[in-house]
Amino acid sequence: MTTLRELGELGLLERLLPHLSAAGGDVLIAAGEDDTAAWRERDGSVTVATCDSFIEGVHFDLDWMPPDVAGWRACALSLADLAAKAAQPAYGLVALAAPASTEASVVEGVYAGLAACAREYGLRLLGGDTTATPGPLAISVFALGRATWEPLPRFAVEPGWTLGLTGPLGGEALALAERRPTRPRPRFGELAPGCVCGDVSDGLLRELVKFRTVAGVGARIESARVPVARGASLEQALTGGEEVELLCAWPGGPRPLTVIGAFTDDGRILVDGEEREGGYEHFG
Amino acid sequence: MTTLRELGELGLLERLLPHLSAAGGDVLIAAGEDDTAAWRERDGSVTVATCDSFIEGVHFDLDWMPPDVAGWRACALSLADLAAKAAQPAYGLVALAAPASTEASVVEGVYAGLAACAREYGLRLLGGDTTATPGPLAISVFALGRATWEPLPRFAVEPGWTLGLTGPLGGEALALAERRPTRPRPRFGELAPGCVCGDVSDGLLRELVKFRTVAGVGARIESARVPVARGASLEQALTGGEEVELLCAWPGGPRPLTVIGAFTDDGRILVDGEEREGGYEHFG
Repeated sequence: MTTLRELGELGLLERLLPHLSAAGGDVLIAAGEDDTAAWRERDGSVTVATCDSFIEGVHFDLDWMPPDVAGWRACALSLADLAAKAAQPAYGLVALAAPASTEASVVEGVYAGLAACAREYGLRLLGGDTTATPGPLAISVFALGRATWEPLPRFAVEPGWTLGLTGPLGGEALALAERRPTRPRPRFGELAPGCVCGDVSDGLLRELVKFRTVAGVGARIESARVPVARGASLEQALTGGEEVELLCAWPGGPRPLTVIGAFTDDGRILVDGEEREGGYEHFG
Repeated sequence: MTTLRELGELGLLERLLPHLSAAGGDVLIAAGEDDTAAWRERDGSVTVATCDSFIEGVHFDLDWMPPDVAGWRACALSLADLAAKAAQPAYGLVALAAPASTEASVVEGVYAGLAACAREYGLRLLGGDTTATPGPLAISVFALGRATWEPLPRFAVEPGWTLGLTGPLGGEALALAERRPTRPRPRFGELAPGCVCGDVSDGLLRELVKFRTVAGVGARIESARVPVARGASLEQALTGGEEVELLCAWPGGPRPLTVIGAFTDDGRILVDGEEREGGYEHFG
């Protein structure tokens, strides 16, 4: 008998993949290849879909975070997956589970925050589901976007591709340590065709492990080139998650991104030449 | 201070609606108008979207229900929302939250059940999200379908419209009472243009209340005409939820459905002339 804690998120994903649909035909990106799915519509356009869950006590703490900030964050961190695929937000649904004893004003606050973020980025929230739970408050955001160019999944990267970031990391880890509510702003409009990108939702090093898992690549990065948010430590920048900044890879040539290293063919994750792993393990 | 229990699901929905997008333009059905959302694509076709959450201890009990049955049910009861809009299942995402101590085989079982149901009805599960939770296991299914004709929201109904069912009710309430696992089969292909339908997810009487809330109509039904599943009681048929059978309304004329009554203009829910309410209150 193996528990999820023993298996880890990536181990679990490996066991679940046989049950999910693969890419092919109109499906461009399917399960396990990325944090998003993508398919071609009949008119030739490409739709990108993502869902993310945010759970009180795991992803946010209403003891110090106002409900509308929790709502904003749930929306923004979901939209970051669309931003990573250069997809313009279109339609969204929200599934909310809350204990019956929850103050209605808390749930209203969460929706006000969700709605403020959705409006800001053009996502129309068209409904969803509310249900009672004996567990903590949970927000699941489903979002669809229209890709402005054909998105590539993580497994498309190759050894030698350059690695870059859209902005500084570690700010969210610092804010969490200081119990300081923040409203992250997803990075739309920063990418160009041919980039393979993902948001740094589980920490920079963890994102590199995900690339290794699906594409077999290693990576070497230079810590001195990693942009660090003001006040944050290098360690927070390397391992802190819940970031809307995007980690991108491309086959070479200049891009308006901060270059931090490159993918390699040896399967190791190297920081300044030393092997490292880290980042957020969901079932740890 | 008001809790969700005091407010109830429909009261909560009323407070959340101002934060959500309304219908108009390409959006045909939006928040609060139905259990689904629908919009027109650029090629003129209509997409229907739904999401539903299923929580251990609320919607299923793994003490007696095999995990694959829980997974099937989560998928089937979500697809029933697409069936109610005559939408052919297309793409799906699943957000799963589970305690780190969960046996991996339980989660695998849930996905095997989800996948079996998805395959059966042509829904391609393209991924989603897994996360740890300190609460119970929770499955949120997000499904998109392609409508075969333009779907109508609940508020389109009018007094005088006929009310009918696609099949017998109460079987799920009976099975729950007997702790007997069932794999409900959503009712695709039973509807015709002009019908306004919804699955009986929270009980027949509760579904009538939902119509009243958005369309201002009352309803009268004759209990002798309500088809009751073998072994179930009339009360189970009137108030039992988690049914994939569809409650439909149309302006008159013959349909291949079992007629049980009609909408009225007085706002009351009448069974054999007696005022009644009931069904499942999520935050009760």
